[in-house]
Amino acid sequence: MKVYLDNHSGTKPDERVIQAMIPYLAEYYGNPQSMHDLGLQTKQAIETARKQVASLINANENEIYFTSCGSESNNLAIKGVALAYKDKKKHIIVSQIEHFSVLYSARRLEKLGFEVTYIPVDKEGFVLLDEIEKAIKEDTVLVSIQHSNPEIGTIQNIKEIVEICHKKGVIVHTDAISSCGVVPIDVKELGVDLLSLSASQFYGPKGAAALYVKKGIRIIPLIDGGVQENGIRAGNENVASIVGMGVAAEIAKSELKENYDKLIKLRNKLIKEIPERIKYVYLNGSVDNRLPNNVNFSFEFIEGEGLSLLLNSKGVYVTSGSACASKALKMSHVLTAIGVDPAVGQGTITMTLSKYNTEEEIDYVLEIIPELVEKLRSMSPLYSYFLQTGQRKPAGPGTDYEHHHDE
Amino acid sequence: MKVYLDNHSGTKPDERVIQAMIPYLAEYYGNPQSMHDLGLQTKQAIETARKQVASLINANENEIYFTSCGSESNNLAIKGVALAYKDKKKHIIVSQIEHFSVLYSARRLEKLGFEVTYIPVDKEGFVLLDEIEKAIKEDTVLVSIQHSNPEIGTIQNIKEIVEICHKKGVIVHTDAISSCGVVPIDVKELGVDLLSLSASQFYGPKGAAALYVKKGIRIIPLIDGGVQENGIRAGNENVASIVGMGVAAEIAKSELKENYDKLIKLRNKLIKEIPERIKYVYLNGSVDNRLPNNVNFSFEFIEGEGLSLLLNSKGVYVTSGSACASKALKMSHVLTAIGVDPAVGQGTITMTLSKYNTEEEIDYVLEIIPELVEKLRSMSPLYSYFLQTGQRKPAGPGTDYEHHHDE
Repeated sequence: MKVYLDNHSGTKPDERVIQAMIPYLAEYYGNPQSMHDLGLQTKQAIETARKQVASLINANENEIYFTSCGSESNNLAIKGVALAYKDKKKHIIVSQIEHFSVLYSARRLEKLGFEVTYIPVDKEGFVLLDEIEKAIKEDTVLVSIQHSNPEIGTIQNIKEIVEICHKKGVIVHTDAISSCGVVPIDVKELGVDLLSLSASQFYGPKGAAALYVKKGIRIIPLIDGGVQENGIRAGNENVASIVGMGVAAEIAKSELKENYDKLIKLRNKLIKEIPERIKYVYLNGSVDNRLPNNVNFSFEFIEGEGLSLLLNSKGVYVTSGSACASKALKMSHVLTAIGVDPAVGQGTITMTLSKYNTEEEIDYVLEIIPELVEKLRSMSPLYSYFLQTGQRKPAGPGTDYEHHHDE
Repeated sequence: MKVYLDNHSGTKPDERVIQAMIPYLAEYYGNPQSMHDLGLQTKQAIETARKQVASLINANENEIYFTSCGSESNNLAIKGVALAYKDKKKHIIVSQIEHFSVLYSARRLEKLGFEVTYIPVDKEGFVLLDEIEKAIKEDTVLVSIQHSNPEIGTIQNIKEIVEICHKKGVIVHTDAISSCGVVPIDVKELGVDLLSLSASQFYGPKGAAALYVKKGIRIIPLIDGGVQENGIRAGNENVASIVGMGVAAEIAKSELKENYDKLIKLRNKLIKEIPERIKYVYLNGSVDNRLPNNVNFSFEFIEGEGLSLLLNSKGVYVTSGSACASKALKMSHVLTAIGVDPAVGQGTITMTLSKYNTEEEIDYVLEIIPELVEKLRSMSPLYSYFLQTGQRKPAGPGTDYEHHHDE
């Protein structure tokens, strides 16, 4: 059995999406900026997609700007607003658990002379609202707080954040990439000024994402050049992917309730039964305000990377919560921010579900995961120490763990 | 008969390219950054494409960075190099006939405190080499000169430009978007430090382009975030388009000679026979150092937009050389730079050929274009004035033309 539980990294596109795209790869290859009939065909296709995407988040169609990926949308929002208002204000606020495309956009701006405040979160991953309020000053132009966290699933109270910020004349961007198409999103109700979304999160293709920019908000392009996207994003439009995003948005809107209910059921089964079957396992993120497709557990005495590789060998595809790029004993910035003990946090995996997952698949995962965890623990010196002494060996320099990871 | 002669705006993808892409839309949807099998599949596909693209321009594969479009490649090259070296050098040189994605990247840098010199060109569109040499100073970090001009087809002597610049320690970028896949490009022979290319110019898909960055050249990402593209371009990779670009590059390389010979023959037929059939028509750009697929004529006494619309009604798709966005009597910055009289330049169309064009198609265009030009001229007050008096009425405020365009 193959079970794909890495849907935050990218969903399997809906078959209807692919069928809608193929003609725009092969037959309708005109440049939307060309004034002849072949250009008009693709221009109209893009404008249809713009309406479909606008409808998903209750925006006006002229407030939707297509980009090539979610990271581009986040970069465009943050750098674009910062540069547009730079002569007046040069302070930006983001949370500590933002996606790297937000955090590193902020870092980039720091190098260009902007000031950035990184707001902490509580143990469930909720951004501390009074910290935002305290951080805002005369010079603050933008607050960027994610709608939900792709790793631990916590959904922020963006509406309240907007109220705090707008009272002080501060623009609000939200990275809603892991939310759009998964939970209802209404930009007018949220009140946000900018919002990022990506097709690959809701059964659309790679290569298309969008940024909602409320009318009246100024923004400087990231990609300068032609007049595409009303001058906000130059470059030949990726028509097929944009068409696919439009169809995916339409499907996501019509199926939202149905998928939501299905995901919640499967997610809750995992959240309930994994701790029933395995000891020393801890759920990260909020229980109540959580993405319906997100499961994130830390398994003590093992490494998330090891577990994800064993699951892979059994046909189950998840992602390990630790950003293990450096191969050092290190867990993700999100787990650090919510205060997870690194010795525990390194044993984290994220499972993100899709509408294609079935109860049989979840049962299969629940069946195999205890023995895989047990297998990894049986190789762990920390676990055998714990079994012998009942004590957790403190992690630190010179432990077997460190040595193993430093190689 | 349908004749697509707007290939600079985008080529029809090769059927083999589309067939290679489709599995990566539907079946292989894993994120290349995921460590499980579905991620590995797409990771390997991207690395294969990187080799194919590198091979087209004789680069090393680790010098190829994928982007979403040619404009992004140009923005990344110019802003990326400027920002990387900004603490030491803040002067940039570009030509007056660059693509907007180059010109407006330079303008953006001016607003961030950089200085830009815009180098003039001669009547055929060749950048004045001694002007480059004169413009270079201690503070110059980058010279960006296009390999060929998409509008008038002139191919620059990049090798000589590189020699001038490297003697003075200046980095050279070339926008080779309209050249790659059309004429042989060898980055080692040219000696350039950065080079932009785009799949949609050589029968590849929209949504994939690349930037060659020679080893050792520093560059700051335009899109900050994850570790994709070796940290130079964050954001989920558009796997299908990248796979398509790779296959297109491989095909372009293997067919280059054959396509070149075919294009030259068709192009020369248009260049020779249009002036034989129509009076008062002028070829823009170089005759000798010209893209094999580029034809650009100014038809006196008419508007390029009008001619392109009439051609459209006959199934022939071209682009009018004038950037007529404002509907004002205005011709493109390229024609202005080569010194075309605005009264003549407004009657310009660009025809860019592809490997799919046939001699029958070219014959059809040659057959219909004289009557369409004649039809437009018969409605022109300037033409009737010319026929009556043998004199060209000087264009200027208050002429019928102006009035017509200001409405």
